[in-house]
Amino acid sequence: MLEALKKEVFEQNLKLVEYGLVVLTWGNVSAIDRESGLFVIKPSGVPYSEMTAEDMVVMDLDGNKVEGKLNPSSDTPTHMELYRNFKDIGGVVHTHSSWACAWAQAGRDVPAYGTTHADFSNGAVPCTRGLTKEEVESAYELNTGRVIVEEFAKRGISPKACPAVLIHRHGPFTWGENAQKAVENALILEEVCNMAYRTESVAALSTDSNIGIEDYLLEKHYNRKHGKNAYYGQKL
Amino acid sequence: MLEALKKEVFEQNLKLVEYGLVVLTWGNVSAIDRESGLFVIKPSGVPYSEMTAEDMVVMDLDGNKVEGKLNPSSDTPTHMELYRNFKDIGGVVHTHSSWACAWAQAGRDVPAYGTTHADFSNGAVPCTRGLTKEEVESAYELNTGRVIVEEFAKRGISPKACPAVLIHRHGPFTWGENAQKAVENALILEEVCNMAYRTESVAALSTDSNIGIEDYLLEKHYNRKHGKNAYYGQKL
Amino acid sequence: MLEALKKEVFEQNLKLVEYGLVVLTWGNVSAIDRESGLFVIKPSGVPYSEMTAEDMVVMDLDGNKVEGKLNPSSDTPTHMELYRNFKDIGGVVHTHSSWACAWAQAGRDVPAYGTTHADFSNGAVPCTRGLTKEEVESAYELNTGRVIVEEFAKRGISPKACPAVLIHRHGPFTWGENAQKAVENALILEEVCNMAYRTESVAALSTDSNIGIEDYLLEKHYNRKHGKNAYYGQKL
Amino acid sequence: MLEALKKEVFEQNLKLVEYGLVVLTWGNVSAIDRESGLFVIKPSGVPYSEMTAEDMVVMDLDGNKVEGKLNPSSDTPTHMELYRNFKDIGGVVHTHSSWACAWAQAGRDVPAYGTTHADFSNGAVPCTRGLTKEEVESAYELNTGRVIVEEFAKRGISPKACPAVLIHRHGPFTWGENAQKAVENALILEEVCNMAYRTESVAALSTDSNIGIEDYLLEKHYNRKHGKNAYYGQKL
Repeated sequence: MLEALKKEVFEQNLKLVEYGLVVLTWGNVSAIDRESGLFVIKPSGVPYSEMTAEDMVVMDLDGNKVEGKLNPSSDTPTHMELYRNFKDIGGVVHTHSSWACAWAQAGRDVPAYGTTHADFSNGAVPCTRGLTKEEVESAYELNTGRVIVEEFAKRGISPKACPAVLIHRHGPFTWGENAQKAVENALILEEVCNMAYRTESVAALSTDSNIGIEDYLLEKHYNRKHGKNAYYGQKL
Repeated sequence: MLEALKKEVFEQNLKLVEYGLVVLTWGNVSAIDRESGLFVIKPSGVPYSEMTAEDMVVMDLDGNKVEGKLNPSSDTPTHMELYRNFKDIGGVVHTHSSWACAWAQAGRDVPAYGTTHADFSNGAVPCTRGLTKEEVESAYELNTGRVIVEEFAKRGISPKACPAVLIHRHGPFTWGENAQKAVENALILEEVCNMAYRTESVAALSTDSNIGIEDYLLEKHYNRKHGKNAYYGQKL
Repeated sequence: MLEALKKEVFEQNLKLVEYGLVVLTWGNVSAIDRESGLFVIKPSGVPYSEMTAEDMVVMDLDGNKVEGKLNPSSDTPTHMELYRNFKDIGGVVHTHSSWACAWAQAGRDVPAYGTTHADFSNGAVPCTRGLTKEEVESAYELNTGRVIVEEFAKRGISPKACPAVLIHRHGPFTWGENAQKAVENALILEEVCNMAYRTESVAALSTDSNIGIEDYLLEKHYNRKHGKNAYYGQKL
Repeated sequence: MLEALKKEVFEQNLKLVEYGLVVLTWGNVSAIDRESGLFVIKPSGVPYSEMTAEDMVVMDLDGNKVEGKLNPSSDTPTHMELYRNFKDIGGVVHTHSSWACAWAQAGRDVPAYGTTHADFSNGAVPCTRGLTKEEVESAYELNTGRVIVEEFAKRGISPKACPAVLIHRHGPFTWGENAQKAVENALILEEVCNMAYRTESVAALSTDSNIGIEDYLLEKHYNRKHGKNAYYGQKL
């Protein structure tokens, strides 16, 4: 079942390796078939080099395994919670990529410092609050998803306006219209986090510097790529 | 038309990937045929791995597409403005390479700290002023080119003396006598920006340090490579 | 003798190169056959590209060479001392990987800043005290092993709870149930050291930041991967 | 003439590319035949990918070209001056590797912070004084060599005890008994410079840190690899 989607999810998991976003068995990609309400996700702790498309696990949105011999990723309930609440997304990615984790571990939002960021997100990439002891000790991975959804609701950010979040003390989740876009967003987020650190560092070394993108430039870049009258790329 | 130039522009766009200067579809290279006044540029938002030489777009210096099925890079008007004003250049490159963007986002010129820089540019690499709200909201990409030209004129720098600029909050443009040289300059600029940051950081960790190249050493290195009596390389 | 183990040790030594953890001939991997009490280790100063499985050296736990034409790694007595005292480990790795060395050279424990660390170690990765002049000048490599064992005993850390240590002014040793796990731990340690530095740096650039993982989150992540009721990965 | 040496110098120049120590045409390796007093060096400004062993240039120690169609590296007089004064060296390397240049541009010696450094050099790697205006404006490259020799004499360092130097505002030269060892030393120097920066940075982020290798540990490591009773590696 869902053979095409399993193949896509498998291939996009391998992209994490190609893009240098994961170490060993870390990281996971999923994608959802909105019609059936089923999503496909990487199995837990399997080396990328030994994994096949057939190893992908099919889940429903109540957390039941529908097909697959292996255990799904331990982060599966987080993916599920995102699919339940962010109705327009088709793919979700979790990694421990190094720069995104550094910002998450420092408990900081990633400010919009330039057009590279603005091409990606219409404002800062939020870092969630930390989970409480209770949230960690029961249904941890599900609560991780809830905290993401809460954070976006509280700040009034739509998942389309910012396709990424940092989990406090943990690392990034990204999403997109499909698995490929979600993986590309994981790659861009890592680059944006790296660049934001470098920007602050370069600025801190001189009094003749200043940081923070102007609102009109942020809007311009975000909209030339994602807005109604976007003119970046090809309309085929 | 301009088949040889299209092939060259295509190949030099792929060099951006080989040199690690671009992520996904970011970045673009163009080159001009001065005789016909036409320039060739990468199409917008096409993955490097799927692109062919035939996908390159031919433009005139009034901004009209002369040949090509695809939309040209969204940064095309910036390239055009540079060709119009910097009469001796034959190729232009734009990337979001990480270190160059960090300096651009911090709004800082890159100071000349050593001979690696002096072999490349006869002084600091300038960062432009920020574009105004008006400049961003109409003819944004054309105004980006205008601001570059304005900055070089204001500072009295010739495009030959410094083949690179940082756009405030955005990233680098580089140029050269042809596409290959412009791409090499994009690579060198990234290395120079990286090295300048490291130099300031190493210096900041000790009171027994000092930075800033001496004028006579800057002149010596710039001229041994680019001056009238240059003796670097082969005169074949 | 021990042909399978020699092959495994040989292959895991090559993994150090593949993972970018070593330069030139630096680094060494060993593994022990607990039944015979013999361990197999890389020869000293042999280039990885010229080494064969047959070049591996077989040692006993009294420091005698049992088989092999070449000299064993100069760090052999450190490996031996670890096998003698940490009864459950099957493989040991030493590298001069760059980030782990930076923390070792600064004489700092690596604090637990997030879940990437917690998935690896149940608390800070300890940096040993420095060796005394006397310890360095006689039986240096053996004393290095003794100091590691002393540090874990003094702090009440079990080798299972933290599979890594930093030697003051020197670099990392890691271990695991076999050579492969020990090498994976060397890779993870390098990533954790890199990420800890980045976390402190990102935090230092803003007053709106804070670092240090909460105990309950540390416990949760360590135990979901290594505890009695671990549910990460496959139980096959 | 000197065909074997030309082949060796050619191959070692390519190692600079493999080791990631050079960009474009930067960097150069030479080696000397002490019997004839002739040395072989890379031609100036030729791309590594197009170079052949036959393109290597043969020079004598008075600076005359003895064989070769191409111009020798513009840094040839520096190499020559090192061969004239450091009688036991057989190979010389110059690069603009990024971390070594950062220390050189900051005008700082690289302190010995750990055993990685001690395995390489018996103390700090010196940064020379800056060249004067007069030294730069006439016989610049020869004077660069003179300043290196002067610095080692002034400090009482032998070229064997430290196989590397940083030229103020410029970058590193390294040497060794032959071209291969000189190139390996260029690679190690870059790693040592990187690690020293990271060590200072990690230390600066905590008050619970301290840096600087103890003399007895420096001696131990230097001598176990390079001393009379060295026991690292194989005596074959």
